[in-house]
Amino acid sequence: MLENYALSKVPERTKKPRQTGFTMVMDKGSSLREAADLIETCGEYVDIIKLGWATSYVFPKLKEKIDLYQSAGIPVYLGGTLFEAFVIRDQFEDYRKVLDKYGLKYAEVSDGSITLDHDRKCEYIRQLSGQVTVLSEVGSKDAAKIIPPYKWIEQMQTELDAGAWKVIGEAREGGNVGLFRDSGEVRQGLVEEILTKIPFERIIWEAPQKTQQVWFIKLLGANVNLGNIAPQEVIPLETIRLGLRGDTFDHFLSQF
Amino acid sequence: MLENYALSKVPERTKKPRQTGFTMVMDKGSSLREAADLIETCGEYVDIIKLGWATSYVFPKLKEKIDLYQSAGIPVYLGGTLFEAFVIRDQFEDYRKVLDKYGLKYAEVSDGSITLDHDRKCEYIRQLSGQVTVLSEVGSKDAAKIIPPYKWIEQMQTELDAGAWKVIGEAREGGNVGLFRDSGEVRQGLVEEILTKIPFERIIWEAPQKTQQVWFIKLLGANVNLGNIAPQEVIPLETIRLGLRGDTFDHFLSQF
Amino acid sequence: MLENYALSKVPERTKKPRQTGFTMVMDKGSSLREAADLIETCGEYVDIIKLGWATSYVFPKLKEKIDLYQSAGIPVYLGGTLFEAFVIRDQFEDYRKVLDKYGLKYAEVSDGSITLDHDRKCEYIRQLSGQVTVLSEVGSKDAAKIIPPYKWIEQMQTELDAGAWKVIGEAREGGNVGLFRDSGEVRQGLVEEILTKIPFERIIWEAPQKTQQVWFIKLLGANVNLGNIAPQEVIPLETIRLGLRGDTFDHFLSQF
Repeated sequence: MLENYALSKVPERTKKPRQTGFTMVMDKGSSLREAADLIETCGEYVDIIKLGWATSYVFPKLKEKIDLYQSAGIPVYLGGTLFEAFVIRDQFEDYRKVLDKYGLKYAEVSDGSITLDHDRKCEYIRQLSGQVTVLSEVGSKDAAKIIPPYKWIEQMQTELDAGAWKVIGEAREGGNVGLFRDSGEVRQGLVEEILTKIPFERIIWEAPQKTQQVWFIKLLGANVNLGNIAPQEVIPLETIRLGLRGDTFDHFLSQF
Repeated sequence: MLENYALSKVPERTKKPRQTGFTMVMDKGSSLREAADLIETCGEYVDIIKLGWATSYVFPKLKEKIDLYQSAGIPVYLGGTLFEAFVIRDQFEDYRKVLDKYGLKYAEVSDGSITLDHDRKCEYIRQLSGQVTVLSEVGSKDAAKIIPPYKWIEQMQTELDAGAWKVIGEAREGGNVGLFRDSGEVRQGLVEEILTKIPFERIIWEAPQKTQQVWFIKLLGANVNLGNIAPQEVIPLETIRLGLRGDTFDHFLSQF
Repeated sequence: MLENYALSKVPERTKKPRQTGFTMVMDKGSSLREAADLIETCGEYVDIIKLGWATSYVFPKLKEKIDLYQSAGIPVYLGGTLFEAFVIRDQFEDYRKVLDKYGLKYAEVSDGSITLDHDRKCEYIRQLSGQVTVLSEVGSKDAAKIIPPYKWIEQMQTELDAGAWKVIGEAREGGNVGLFRDSGEVRQGLVEEILTKIPFERIIWEAPQKTQQVWFIKLLGANVNLGNIAPQEVIPLETIRLGLRGDTFDHFLSQF
């Protein structure tokens, strides 16, 4: 238990290694010192780090940062946009070498910025899952591409069948596409329909904005899997999960 | 004087320990290193630190952080939501022990997330003011609960009478409730009416957004008490107080 | 080359010292440690640092911070609002001494918050360019002051003629005035008309918001000069310049 003092009626959180209650944090260029701070301050609450999109291409001291996180027991993976950048350039084999070069044990397969035949996407998942643990992402970064719910479900299911460990519901850093409307509002019907078919422990919901985090936690509980959390929002997110911020204060109390 | 070079026609700022011109900073999970940076960079400008809502429950190295701030001469208190979390669980005595355990000299009494009979709220203020210096907060975190001005005044006055050192006008981290409309706009009539009855040195106005800070500074001068300031906004806020940012540049010059 | 691995079809970036592809970063009160982090993490990508508006007046350890950046080969200048604060107080000679005292090699001349006869503005540029390298800024911080395109061009040209090294298109920290509408949207016609007359390497476009950076990069390429970039956005900006973030992913690929 990490709690600093005793409070009754606080929902129980899962412990590491978590299958649910999972927090994926997006690092979009943190310094080594900021990474060390995150480990010290939030290490227990961070389940995996994504080096956002292709920031790993330009970040100096990349190897040091990956090693720093991984030696603290926090796995790291490279954003899906980077996978796509390699694929669209016919450099998939180079991508596999990058994963090995940096000692990465996780990878993301996505098609948010490219058009990828879904069978081919599943083939990439199959191939990569022989090398690393695969997270696959469903949903476009293009606000104009609206995918109907039955298709979200079909894609999530076939990607899990192809070997994905978990599927990610796309939202971008800004939280305004995919699962969300332009305004940042959650597409509630979509989420509810997905949950009738896909087990909730297999899904990571990207929810960078506080209102989105609150929405998922109210719907699915303290131990929903959430992603694209900014480093400085990890501590606040824990309090939302525990009903100890105004937004979910009543919600959890009424359950005891 | 901390100013690095001489400029004429700059409003005079109060010095520590301040009764007016007070800046309350919200720490919502800063690392120890960030806390040390704040002390080094803004120590002279920060009058008190609030560990936002219940972030202290989950923050590791809590004792070290509190000691770090306090040994630099900056008092620390725990967010009002935490007080409310203890009260609603009938754990008020436990809360008092937490204050002692961490060597805290200040505490907040609020009812932003719970319904608390106002006499009982004043009783808590009375009890706690025998142990620590009390800040009490008026205003709901619930955007739907509109409190009329005469009631703000009545509550502020009775809370000061009950022993509160200062009263805080609620705005949350986002600055969109209490003193502010949904849009973040200030409820100007409310503020002006409050000021006809309550001395301005006894009030801390929560003003997390720049436009709100500017509004209060233009209305009440360089040395208005402001709260919920993010650590990275302390230096910018000082320049706004001094008429050295575009927003208040003309306002202060025209007074010389 | 700083890239961590090989990717084909990535636009070529200019190298330091850059005349184009220039990134100006706004420091509005970073701690010494954050400044050191920026140098370590983004040193290759940061061409110049602006200490925003008059933050240098209140920032402790100012000399240390300027020396830290400059000894890493990154020049520093003080925000234009500070120049204006000295000028309006008839303290221009004091301003020149401040530049010398801190060993600054660059300065900004602007009239965003004061009304300055344009001939007098050019005279300041002439005088200061005998002492340091001058950046001059065109555009008002006042959202109500709309300057027509022909006047932007005329002012930019005469300021370059007076000795300015580069001219800056004003946007403030928030990106909602000058080049931009209230909403943050770019005044496209204005930018296009300016570019028919002023060479693009002589202009730094203030573009603090991501959508603005994307807009300029799509219009003017990877190596457009951009300013008012927040320290934590330098790495993300590099990926946008290189077509390695969703926003410009297709744009650059279609050019190969």
